[in-house]
Amino acid sequence: MASSQVIRGLTQSAALPLSSCSAQSAASAHVQLSPLPVQLSALPRDRTVKQHVSSKVLASEFSGLRLDSSAGCSTSGAQPPRSERRNRNGAARATATVGTDAQTLKKVDPKLSQRCITAIRTLTVDSVENAQAGHPGLPMGCAPIGYVLFDEVMKYNPKNPQWFNRDRFVLSAGHGVLLQYILLHLVGYDSVQVDDLKSLCKWGSRCPGHPENLLTGGIELTTGPLGQGTANAVGFAMAEKHLAARFNRPGHEIVNHYTYCLAGDGCLMEGISNEAGSMAGHLGLGKLIMFYDNNNNSIDGPTSITFDEDVCKRYEALGWHVQRVGDPDSHLDDLRQAIVRAKSVTDKPSFIQVDTTIGYGSPSKQGTAKAHHGTFGPEEVEKIRETLHADYKEPFTVPQDVLDHWRQNVTRGEQAEGEWKQEWERYQREYPEEARELDNLVNQRLPDDWESVIPDFSGETKGDATRGWSEKVINALAGRVPGLIGGSADLATSNKLYLKAWGDFEKDAPAERNIRYGVREHAMAAISNGLALHRSGLIPFAGTFFVFTDYMRGAVRISALSDAGVIYVVTHDSIGLGEDGPTHQPVEHLASLRAMPNMTVVRPGDAIEVAGAYKVAIKNRSGPTMIVLSRQKLSSAVVSGTSADNVEKGGYVVSDNSEPGKVPDLILLATGAELELSEKAATKMREEAGFKVRLVSMVCWELFEAQPESYRNDVLPLECQARVSVEAGSKLGWREWVGPRGKIIAVDRFGASADYDTLFAKFGFSVDNIVSVSKQAIAEAVPV
Amino acid sequence: MASSQVIRGLTQSAALPLSSCSAQSAASAHVQLSPLPVQLSALPRDRTVKQHVSSKVLASEFSGLRLDSSAGCSTSGAQPPRSERRNRNGAARATATVGTDAQTLKKVDPKLSQRCITAIRTLTVDSVENAQAGHPGLPMGCAPIGYVLFDEVMKYNPKNPQWFNRDRFVLSAGHGVLLQYILLHLVGYDSVQVDDLKSLCKWGSRCPGHPENLLTGGIELTTGPLGQGTANAVGFAMAEKHLAARFNRPGHEIVNHYTYCLAGDGCLMEGISNEAGSMAGHLGLGKLIMFYDNNNNSIDGPTSITFDEDVCKRYEALGWHVQRVGDPDSHLDDLRQAIVRAKSVTDKPSFIQVDTTIGYGSPSKQGTAKAHHGTFGPEEVEKIRETLHADYKEPFTVPQDVLDHWRQNVTRGEQAEGEWKQEWERYQREYPEEARELDNLVNQRLPDDWESVIPDFSGETKGDATRGWSEKVINALAGRVPGLIGGSADLATSNKLYLKAWGDFEKDAPAERNIRYGVREHAMAAISNGLALHRSGLIPFAGTFFVFTDYMRGAVRISALSDAGVIYVVTHDSIGLGEDGPTHQPVEHLASLRAMPNMTVVRPGDAIEVAGAYKVAIKNRSGPTMIVLSRQKLSSAVVSGTSADNVEKGGYVVSDNSEPGKVPDLILLATGAELELSEKAATKMREEAGFKVRLVSMVCWELFEAQPESYRNDVLPLECQARVSVEAGSKLGWREWVGPRGKIIAVDRFGASADYDTLFAKFGFSVDNIVSVSKQAIAEAVPV
Repeated sequence: MASSQVIRGLTQSAALPLSSCSAQSAASAHVQLSPLPVQLSALPRDRTVKQHVSSKVLASEFSGLRLDSSAGCSTSGAQPPRSERRNRNGAARATATVGTDAQTLKKVDPKLSQRCITAIRTLTVDSVENAQAGHPGLPMGCAPIGYVLFDEVMKYNPKNPQWFNRDRFVLSAGHGVLLQYILLHLVGYDSVQVDDLKSLCKWGSRCPGHPENLLTGGIELTTGPLGQGTANAVGFAMAEKHLAARFNRPGHEIVNHYTYCLAGDGCLMEGISNEAGSMAGHLGLGKLIMFYDNNNNSIDGPTSITFDEDVCKRYEALGWHVQRVGDPDSHLDDLRQAIVRAKSVTDKPSFIQVDTTIGYGSPSKQGTAKAHHGTFGPEEVEKIRETLHADYKEPFTVPQDVLDHWRQNVTRGEQAEGEWKQEWERYQREYPEEARELDNLVNQRLPDDWESVIPDFSGETKGDATRGWSEKVINALAGRVPGLIGGSADLATSNKLYLKAWGDFEKDAPAERNIRYGVREHAMAAISNGLALHRSGLIPFAGTFFVFTDYMRGAVRISALSDAGVIYVVTHDSIGLGEDGPTHQPVEHLASLRAMPNMTVVRPGDAIEVAGAYKVAIKNRSGPTMIVLSRQKLSSAVVSGTSADNVEKGGYVVSDNSEPGKVPDLILLATGAELELSEKAATKMREEAGFKVRLVSMVCWELFEAQPESYRNDVLPLECQARVSVEAGSKLGWREWVGPRGKIIAVDRFGASADYDTLFAKFGFSVDNIVSVSKQAIAEAVPV
Repeated sequence: MASSQVIRGLTQSAALPLSSCSAQSAASAHVQLSPLPVQLSALPRDRTVKQHVSSKVLASEFSGLRLDSSAGCSTSGAQPPRSERRNRNGAARATATVGTDAQTLKKVDPKLSQRCITAIRTLTVDSVENAQAGHPGLPMGCAPIGYVLFDEVMKYNPKNPQWFNRDRFVLSAGHGVLLQYILLHLVGYDSVQVDDLKSLCKWGSRCPGHPENLLTGGIELTTGPLGQGTANAVGFAMAEKHLAARFNRPGHEIVNHYTYCLAGDGCLMEGISNEAGSMAGHLGLGKLIMFYDNNNNSIDGPTSITFDEDVCKRYEALGWHVQRVGDPDSHLDDLRQAIVRAKSVTDKPSFIQVDTTIGYGSPSKQGTAKAHHGTFGPEEVEKIRETLHADYKEPFTVPQDVLDHWRQNVTRGEQAEGEWKQEWERYQREYPEEARELDNLVNQRLPDDWESVIPDFSGETKGDATRGWSEKVINALAGRVPGLIGGSADLATSNKLYLKAWGDFEKDAPAERNIRYGVREHAMAAISNGLALHRSGLIPFAGTFFVFTDYMRGAVRISALSDAGVIYVVTHDSIGLGEDGPTHQPVEHLASLRAMPNMTVVRPGDAIEVAGAYKVAIKNRSGPTMIVLSRQKLSSAVVSGTSADNVEKGGYVVSDNSEPGKVPDLILLATGAELELSEKAATKMREEAGFKVRLVSMVCWELFEAQPESYRNDVLPLECQARVSVEAGSKLGWREWVGPRGKIIAVDRFGASADYDTLFAKFGFSVDNIVSVSKQAIAEAVPV
């Protein structure tokens, strides 16, 4: 059975020689902190570098975490058998049941706690006043939550922000990032020094206006566009649950962390949070704990002007465990106990509403929208210090005993990681194969021959849609690329995006690798960002119709901005979709995504280019790749002259009947399904009219643009101005490639409901029309 | 007080001479059915026509609806006084309380009811088999809902689909459109004949694969992308509530209709539906009734694989009145009674879950995802007929007595409209001024001098952001354009988008014209589509940061596709946003929206162009306009040479120091805030280096492209190849305007967090850099 061979393939890959050391020695050789791939410049790096990562991609090195000695029963499910039925209770079970875990809460003198909280608030005020910018309302209101989480609850090591098994903190209400900067500073991260706080929102600062994962050690995710973080956190919790199910063994909870999320009313008004919340409830993500910063204010005023739903009841309806804590300054113990209870519920995600006071401590602004953003001014600052009983006047002061207390988290963190490392060593001894596999996964090491599993389509002639070949390629790759995990937004059948050797990732089967996202595109993309930025080597893929990238664009942009290597597999890529009509037919989507920085849009034209597209996508671990595929079938698997390897160049000559060194009469440029059509037109031009015609595949503009100018001029010689582009999408941008005299066969209106053949003919995508336009182009072109 | 003058302005406008007849005679002169502006070709009409509508726009003519004689107390609120406080209980109150309205349910022989329902099902099967395409699952499952609504409950006139006061039906689950086509056919609409059903999904058909408002009389909205309809329906219900509050008078319920929506599980998984549902609950839209087609299946299988939340409880949490009806075939009376109860609840929207069977009647497919779309084949068709006891074999048969029963709705509808017309005549006599105002509103007649209220900025020098001038313009216009209604997604202050003479549209103040959308961009855009396509003359505006158009892009596309004249006012339009950093700085958004068909993107460069942008937007009633505005201040209100009228040309010469008839040395092209910067660079080039420099404003590409080639060549003479574009966004598309040798100063990477001045300098938007690039362009340009 083909699918079980795929599984064997995976097992073999895990058994392949590792980078030169056994898993055990690899682990012991890699216990040092590996720095985050921090991007110190605010500008993205050179695309050419990013697009062409070696197949031995290096990510963070694998490091450790303390395990609770009280940790309960473990999970199983190493190589889960093929899931024959949905929702089965198979070998792969939910992650471990955890105890009440009350012991993770430290006993601290209440007065000291209060002063620790006050330090957050005064540093907030100082930073905002110094920057004359920023959002003080949330950090002041949520200071108690930040304190309890970072000082008492969370497991992390300030000296190794990339410690694999750390608890994750996601600030969905990203405008409140100052809270996180201050916490990172107080607990001893190197990434945020006082000088960094003083450079808030300044050019080159490690403290930009919203959280950016590439700039600041300890910031897991780029958030800010509201709601994203709530879905990213679901991705984190899913990654943990998945890896725990795959790798934990009895007595060895090598993967075991919580995900904490802080969300504001804005996050919860956004539809994406409801999508993600519904997913989380369905999957029973017991180790996801979300705090709702219920401060009753949004930018335009009290939330009552538009948001008076019963949020707690809604989350109950979504399947969450819901708790409500009053004013956290008066009820700090309630907050603590709520977290303990949340941890004790292992089969549901937890929602904790905390009734905070925005801008707490500011006599004139607290509790109102005025505290949301902006500065206070010196007089109000003085009053805030009085109100908070902060008897230090110098900005950025933290009393020594308070700082000493906070900094205990350095030792605590190092201890925690140290204990985890010991556990990891034991695990390596007892489960060397699993340890090697996990090590390879996290460090993104692929077997040298991973590309060889991709089917060789060169001899194949049978026609199919490009989505059909995509199905073959991703299924072949899944056996060799153990990080591949993902799914579709209720279009798995249409997208042909399902890993046949695995079953559905479900509440009771989290080791599986197919995710049923439901009709929730936006959450799908943001969850994929979470899976990617969990930085455990997972390579998320996500599918829908190309036109519905509109629904998830907010999150797709964050993939690009935060270097999340998500593979978007989008099908039904043009009017070629047919009968469903214009609501389902993308027109402007290629252009709109090509305009997005750090997005790699690949639109393969045949089976061979589909293979090439996946190679690009797997290698591109520092940004999203959008593989754009047809619904309609092509007449043959191969357009003569295509090359999987050439896809990495973005544009290349597919065929040319000119004599060597001579300039052709015409260059035809095409992508996707229109490549085959253009080949037919080229053949007709060559055979019937004797023209010298070059056919160029423009399969990925971004990669072509990254080539040296000399290469680009070789493919598109300036001497040939008779150029015609053929692509069933917006004309926007094609002028760059066809030149001033070139012709653009494009779709610049909405489509229509009809069969594919009729539509293509009506919109000018026929051999005859291409030939006709080409002849016109030749006639009008004047040699340079 | 300026604001009250604005209100007076509005009153005056209503008193201006009408198109040549008084309101009363206008009404009697317009009682004839005005055909829908049906677009019979599937292709959009010529943009030039669409973009330049006359200021006396003609929409559907105003026609009538039966009022319940039992109608309860009315509303007041003609010209609402300025709302001084939020949530006040002022003159403008909620729409009328309605009675239980049980009398709208007809008594029908149960057997005949069943045969009427069966006719829907057999026509579904026949249409799908004939087309070999389509989605039979929903129409067969929801046939009882369709029957009760269209035969017993809804008020409409098949012979006048545009009857102003008709009940609205919104099919959010648009793939089930066959249900609606069949209902329209059965009840006697002219738009769907048997031949239309036979042309389902064929080129040029009035029955495309998803509902398209421009193609089929009786289809209110373009839906299909899931969830949109749930928000459109909220827009409809808001429009009704608003107009009722503005125009109804004691004893005169001239505006009084329900909005019914049918949504599937897919719609309810989409975040947009939760956003819209939360809004509807907040606003207490008592005349919105939504049916949830709970058939337990989505495309990829049973909904249980990903969607097991408690939907009813969620809607309760959102503030809806929730009911659940079992299998509607066995519980038709329960369905009827649920609608009666829903109508009796006047302060909450109603949610009615109906436990349908997808593909009801198909022995092998019903109740499974297999019935969602696709054909049955002849054998199964025969079995379906047997199961349904349909003793007619010929496809597209409807037994005569069944058809006769359905067609009674023609008479019923004409009677209903006739009664409403009588009411309308009484209203005109008793409230002539209000009647004239309503008549003008619905028929989109503006006072001749409406443009004159726009401030004259020509003498103004004080600098501001373009968003600042936008605030002045829209506030001035609001007094003369009574249809303007809208708001912002919790950024009213930042967008400067608030009508100061009006208060907040709230549950108890629906006559007001500022809508508090909360942080719900996607619902905002889709609700705006509903407000526009209610076709009562409302001109919705909607604001957010430009970057967050990503969140609402799914609905923005529908604005463009369905000719919804929404005015999007988006601010913070580039890296010029500053400190908030790259998550909030648009880069690719101009290009991505310019690629969208029928979208008009206007990015004004000074106060005068802001005025021009609004003129374009108000006149453009057949598509969305996106007015793109800066956060940062410009140094002066006017760039010398700009013109509000020239904005309609999209691109024009702002200044040029060449001698008349001579070709300049350089053309600088710019938009938005970069126009002023380019003017400074042009001045420097002219004064310091003696160059002849033409400055061109490219304020709206779409309008410029619609100009004759001769005009475009006049503005951008081919003889001048030294061209430099200056726009702080993606370079994509600029090659078209700068030519092969031109230079493009653009932003093709993500932005950064810093102050605006630093960012502009770092990204090359400085006078010095523009001058430097310009000199290079001149040096490299070779005359053609």
